[in-house]
Amino acid sequence: MAPGILSPEKIQTTNFVSTSLKEDSGIKSQRNKEHELVLKTFRLLISDLCQQFNGGHPGGAIGMAAIGIALWKYVMRYAPLQPEFFNRDRFVLSNGHTCLFQYTFLHLTGYRDMTMDQLKSYHSKRWDSICPGHPEIEIEGIEVTTGPLGQGVANAVGLAMATKNLAATYNRPGFDVVSNHTWCMIGDACLQEGVALEAISFAGHLKLNNLTIIYDNNQITCDGSVDLTNTEDVNAKMMACGWDVIDVKDGCYDVDGIVAALEKARASADKPTFINVRTIIGLDSSVAGQAEAHGAAFGADDVKRMKRSYGFNDDEYFVVGDQVRQFFSDLPSRGEQNVSQWNDLVGKYADAHPLLAEEFQRRRSGKLPSDWKTLIPSPDNFSDKPLATRASSGLMINPLAKEINSFMVGTADLSPSVHMAWDGKQDFQHVTCGINGSYAGRSFFMFYLYAAPAVRMGALQRLKVIHAATHDTIGMGEDGPTHQPIELAALFRAMPNLLYIRPADSEETAGAWIAAIEVQDASSIISTSRHKVPQLKQTRRDGVAKGAYVIQEDDDAQLTLIGVGAELSHVIDTAVVLREIKGIRCRVVSFPCQRLFEGQSLDYKRNTLRRHRNIPAVVVEPYAPNGWERYADASISVRRFGHSLPGPEAYKYFGFDVDSIVSKVSDYLMRISQDEILRREFLDL
Amino acid sequence: MAPGILSPEKIQTTNFVSTSLKEDSGIKSQRNKEHELVLKTFRLLISDLCQQFNGGHPGGAIGMAAIGIALWKYVMRYAPLQPEFFNRDRFVLSNGHTCLFQYTFLHLTGYRDMTMDQLKSYHSKRWDSICPGHPEIEIEGIEVTTGPLGQGVANAVGLAMATKNLAATYNRPGFDVVSNHTWCMIGDACLQEGVALEAISFAGHLKLNNLTIIYDNNQITCDGSVDLTNTEDVNAKMMACGWDVIDVKDGCYDVDGIVAALEKARASADKPTFINVRTIIGLDSSVAGQAEAHGAAFGADDVKRMKRSYGFNDDEYFVVGDQVRQFFSDLPSRGEQNVSQWNDLVGKYADAHPLLAEEFQRRRSGKLPSDWKTLIPSPDNFSDKPLATRASSGLMINPLAKEINSFMVGTADLSPSVHMAWDGKQDFQHVTCGINGSYAGRSFFMFYLYAAPAVRMGALQRLKVIHAATHDTIGMGEDGPTHQPIELAALFRAMPNLLYIRPADSEETAGAWIAAIEVQDASSIISTSRHKVPQLKQTRRDGVAKGAYVIQEDDDAQLTLIGVGAELSHVIDTAVVLREIKGIRCRVVSFPCQRLFEGQSLDYKRNTLRRHRNIPAVVVEPYAPNGWERYADASISVRRFGHSLPGPEAYKYFGFDVDSIVSKVSDYLMRISQDEILRREFLDL
Repeated sequence: MAPGILSPEKIQTTNFVSTSLKEDSGIKSQRNKEHELVLKTFRLLISDLCQQFNGGHPGGAIGMAAIGIALWKYVMRYAPLQPEFFNRDRFVLSNGHTCLFQYTFLHLTGYRDMTMDQLKSYHSKRWDSICPGHPEIEIEGIEVTTGPLGQGVANAVGLAMATKNLAATYNRPGFDVVSNHTWCMIGDACLQEGVALEAISFAGHLKLNNLTIIYDNNQITCDGSVDLTNTEDVNAKMMACGWDVIDVKDGCYDVDGIVAALEKARASADKPTFINVRTIIGLDSSVAGQAEAHGAAFGADDVKRMKRSYGFNDDEYFVVGDQVRQFFSDLPSRGEQNVSQWNDLVGKYADAHPLLAEEFQRRRSGKLPSDWKTLIPSPDNFSDKPLATRASSGLMINPLAKEINSFMVGTADLSPSVHMAWDGKQDFQHVTCGINGSYAGRSFFMFYLYAAPAVRMGALQRLKVIHAATHDTIGMGEDGPTHQPIELAALFRAMPNLLYIRPADSEETAGAWIAAIEVQDASSIISTSRHKVPQLKQTRRDGVAKGAYVIQEDDDAQLTLIGVGAELSHVIDTAVVLREIKGIRCRVVSFPCQRLFEGQSLDYKRNTLRRHRNIPAVVVEPYAPNGWERYADASISVRRFGHSLPGPEAYKYFGFDVDSIVSKVSDYLMRISQDEILRREFLDL
Repeated sequence: MAPGILSPEKIQTTNFVSTSLKEDSGIKSQRNKEHELVLKTFRLLISDLCQQFNGGHPGGAIGMAAIGIALWKYVMRYAPLQPEFFNRDRFVLSNGHTCLFQYTFLHLTGYRDMTMDQLKSYHSKRWDSICPGHPEIEIEGIEVTTGPLGQGVANAVGLAMATKNLAATYNRPGFDVVSNHTWCMIGDACLQEGVALEAISFAGHLKLNNLTIIYDNNQITCDGSVDLTNTEDVNAKMMACGWDVIDVKDGCYDVDGIVAALEKARASADKPTFINVRTIIGLDSSVAGQAEAHGAAFGADDVKRMKRSYGFNDDEYFVVGDQVRQFFSDLPSRGEQNVSQWNDLVGKYADAHPLLAEEFQRRRSGKLPSDWKTLIPSPDNFSDKPLATRASSGLMINPLAKEINSFMVGTADLSPSVHMAWDGKQDFQHVTCGINGSYAGRSFFMFYLYAAPAVRMGALQRLKVIHAATHDTIGMGEDGPTHQPIELAALFRAMPNLLYIRPADSEETAGAWIAAIEVQDASSIISTSRHKVPQLKQTRRDGVAKGAYVIQEDDDAQLTLIGVGAELSHVIDTAVVLREIKGIRCRVVSFPCQRLFEGQSLDYKRNTLRRHRNIPAVVVEPYAPNGWERYADASISVRRFGHSLPGPEAYKYFGFDVDSIVSKVSDYLMRISQDEILRREFLDL
């Protein structure tokens, strides 16, 4: 260990005994010699990989080398040749910029895709590289895409919850068919991100003893020492959140100590475990323990110097010697044993619990029962009374969730507001928490701005997460501008791999849920109203599936009115007034989802909007209009922050009552009839 | 205190002694009798205000009543008749849904705008109400707009930091001209939000002893008990973050105990203080201590019952008796004394330190020295070598920040990446933190998605916050899709009161900083490149001020090419190839900021884009195109997540190299020449 790099005052004092196994300093066991060789080989390989294109993040990966050996050689249960082995441990690299750490262990332990040739593609120009700058879920052996610090912690908590849910549902005495552990590697910045702090608190509450966070505590940021901006007692904070804490003092070399800590964590009876491992960033480079080791190659000369000091040839690159290959060589076959043991167990389980085993198989396949769509109420089941679409949403999802146990739902302590409850609903709680009555659900749309980074990570990974967001637009009323999500639709409509759907009534809400469940490889936001909206006779769930559809056709129309979600009824009422009072012939289009519409044929799109027939289109939505310019010629929208007023009054204040819309639209038609240039420009009415 | 509502196990055990002053239970002092009357009056007034329109949030405000008396009557230093008194204590209601708490104390303590008539406008249809559903900064006596839980904590930390900065800059021995305290009221959910947890950790690090958080610990969420989802030891967590913790057991009645805690907090030598006050939500209503007390009026019958049980007439409403008026009547004159004492102090300070006093006056006015713009380098000072606009940004802000002490900058431990340092720069640290070398700065643009709720709150309050966001578009390269902000521009361009500016080179970066400093009542994001971009001869800082401007004119143009930020040079190079190789005559427009452009005259806008002359416009920007449809007829954009490749290779991969752009644009012109309908539709090339 490089002396003097960590000054004593930077080592936080704790009450925890180090788990390091003491050995006579004069004797190094064969095991330790092996570890030393592997560590040196690993560190030089990382240095070479960064040096080849003079970029990347070597320091963290090098500092974490001993942790990697402990995990992949001794502790984690997995199968390199069958990466999708269901009961494998999950590893999440929340400090994703150290991705070379993971890629290199995938290579050494025998994952087939991760060849040395691929390792060398890190930071290259190769379009087919599977070594991107942060781990990506599409790559064999990678469980979670990471990068934005802290997100991996939340993902790991989610994985551990999913495991607990499956285990509680399918394990039976003698048949622990779900028993894997989740390991989450983090750096200091992960612990400074709110998303991680929130998830850590929740994991402690849930007593997720199948979750371990391993903290690569090198005390270095890009700016220098962590204590420039953070001097909290992290161990005490974790304990306050209900976690066990284990310290490892020498994380650079003490593989056995790390193994002991990891095994203790796996054996935890009733808490998640936080292992605080002191490491040195960029160990043995000339910038060891310094910020400079974080995000730049060390320089060719320094890598040569490191090689010489390690007893390696300084003109050989990417060297993995036979002894090191030998060290990892048992892992593929051990992995195959893991798989066959589990397959045996599941086979016996199928004999003992055939129905359960069948359902377990379906759950693992990610499929719903084939008749799921019949569970969603048909229009005959709706009342014709006005209903908030947040309540309609409850009508759709609740029978599904009651009958199909694949749904796990979360809410932000807002259950009475978000309508999600069903007979027999069970809280996700540790058994020691006997309280019932927590409704699972969702949150207000405005607060999806807090959740946006996590929504993005779900969409980026093409996970079928369904976000049920209530209280959309200014119609949510009195809570005012802090709660009225003027500009959020623009974000989520622009976000790739995401459907942002605003249903207009119960029928369209049914369509929204069907679309969200049917879509392959995308997340969805179903955005609903706080207030009651009328049940519209013309709405159709299969129209929602197309993103937009004609509600009222008129072959001689002078105008297309586009209505969206909770305000579609305003547009339908406007069309009546325009036709009957003003003599203006209108078509009406319901437009719940832009991205679904984009997926339709050119013919469908043209026939829906009829702009190719030169019919002007006006979209009415009390959001920022950004993006509607593609589908309309003018908008009635909100281009400022909201205002605290009761919902109907807020609509009046912003001009979304029928009178205001009629007046603006009539005026628009007159203006464009008088000025051809205006017709070609997008106007905010 | 309603017995039995808080079960013993819900009271967290701590090592802290309650500060409650013990009194002989047989004797109630005159003071306590007075408090009881005020408390009853306050609680009934809140109940009446919610009952009148059958809505609102009564429970929290009622539970916090005694805290309010302690703050406004005994502890806070302020001036109801001069709400802008500079050295006033700042009060932040982070649990903003309990706004009636603050409105009612503003009324009782004599703020002139907050009449009883206005109080009654809470949840009314009055467009001129100053009692919106959450506190808004525009209202007399409100310091911070709050609502999204947790934000207020971060704002309070910011206020306390600003005070510390001013005090360190302007206080002199014997002249503590800046000495105010910041009080932040929070509920349980504030403590569950990442934004608060981040700020709490930072405040502890900075040892902000001028900051106190008062936790309305009623243990109730909309779903029921807090411990359904959160069982952490909050006091231990706060201590781990470097805070002093004080418990108050009877927060419903023990005004003296609360006062003692608050005074102890103000006297703290070197830590911020967290006061954990046990209260009962909706005290004395029939739903006291229950989730139902949170967000609904109690019902007319129950309010009548409360009145009778308090000895009030049950058919009188909005009653504030003479004794209660009398109780608060000294506060306006005490406030005037606070002001005159401070004015005296500042007067003497001006005699003793005239230059400093003058500068202090300027700082308070919010103005910069009149010659600030001359500090920004002129084009003669730029090298003509390619430079990353993040580096250009450093060139602009650093001389400003060196000469003008109004700038406080923050960074996310990314200083080497974000270029912000100047001679004499001082770290904002507690004096006990002797470490130097922290560069102030900013963060990567992608991580403005984490910051988006806070950016929004700044924009909503029209605060002139300048966000310097680096590493924009796919040009940032290897870090890949988690770091490439494809859809973020759509959010920030839609966000009201915000300029999102992408400068193309050093000259435009100068323009961006000037625009961000000159804009009144708005925040800004200056979005810059990680990679080097050429210095373009045609760019103009005064063009940036107009949002978009012509870079290359051609009166016979067949096409307008719109370039933005780091990729403007691609467009200029494309125009050369189109002209010289393809014989296509192009105009080029640089378009750094949509919102600034919207503020220009119709003539300017038309002459810049020339779409009224029927010249098709193609915008080139490697972001989601949403919103550009307003200004262009087609886009070369990115409508999927990014890809990890070195910057120049990423441009090729997504078709933003000159060859690809030339090919797409040529193809577009051919297509629209053959199909008139395509000319009228927005196309993604």
